[in-house]
Amino acid sequence: RSVRSLGVEPHCRCIETESRRIGPRIAKFELISANSHCERLEIIATLKQSGKEVCLNPEAPWVRKLIENMIPNRRHIGR
Amino acid sequence: RSVRSLGVEPHCRCIETESRRIGPRIAKFELISANSHCERLEIIATLKQSGKEVCLNPEAPWVRKLIENMIPNRRHIGR
Repeated sequence: RSVRSLGVEPHCRCIETESRRIGPRIAKFELISANSHCERLEIIATLKQSGKEVCLNPEAPWVRKLIENMIPNRRHIGR
Repeated sequence: RSVRSLGVEPHCRCIETESRRIGPRIAKFELISANSHCERLEIIATLKQSGKEVCLNPEAPWVRKLIENMIPNRRHIGR
């Protein structure tokens, strides 16, 4: 598991980030901004089938796209 | 609190969404896709100072912008 246990979080939750692209079946994204415990942004995806948590590289364009695709874009909705 | 307790989640976590714009000082975003418990996408922001959780309207353009601003955009980084 590339995510530390969710107990006390003295450090970053992600030890490493997943380089392979993961599919679109994401149950949840967590975007955790840099803070006193961890000096970098962390993006953690929870996969639908397995419930597994996967750390993603915040700078990878495909990660940004995956998150944007999850949020409905009013301009695309025919209202 | 507009977020149900984090115990068993038979329903959606958000009862209502915050209409007023919240500031950029967000510790964490959770994007929870529609699932068997809740048939709609939910976006929950945790505020830095108070640690308070606030439900945001996924269809509000400013919410989308707030999330996008949190993710570094390679095109903007002078590499």
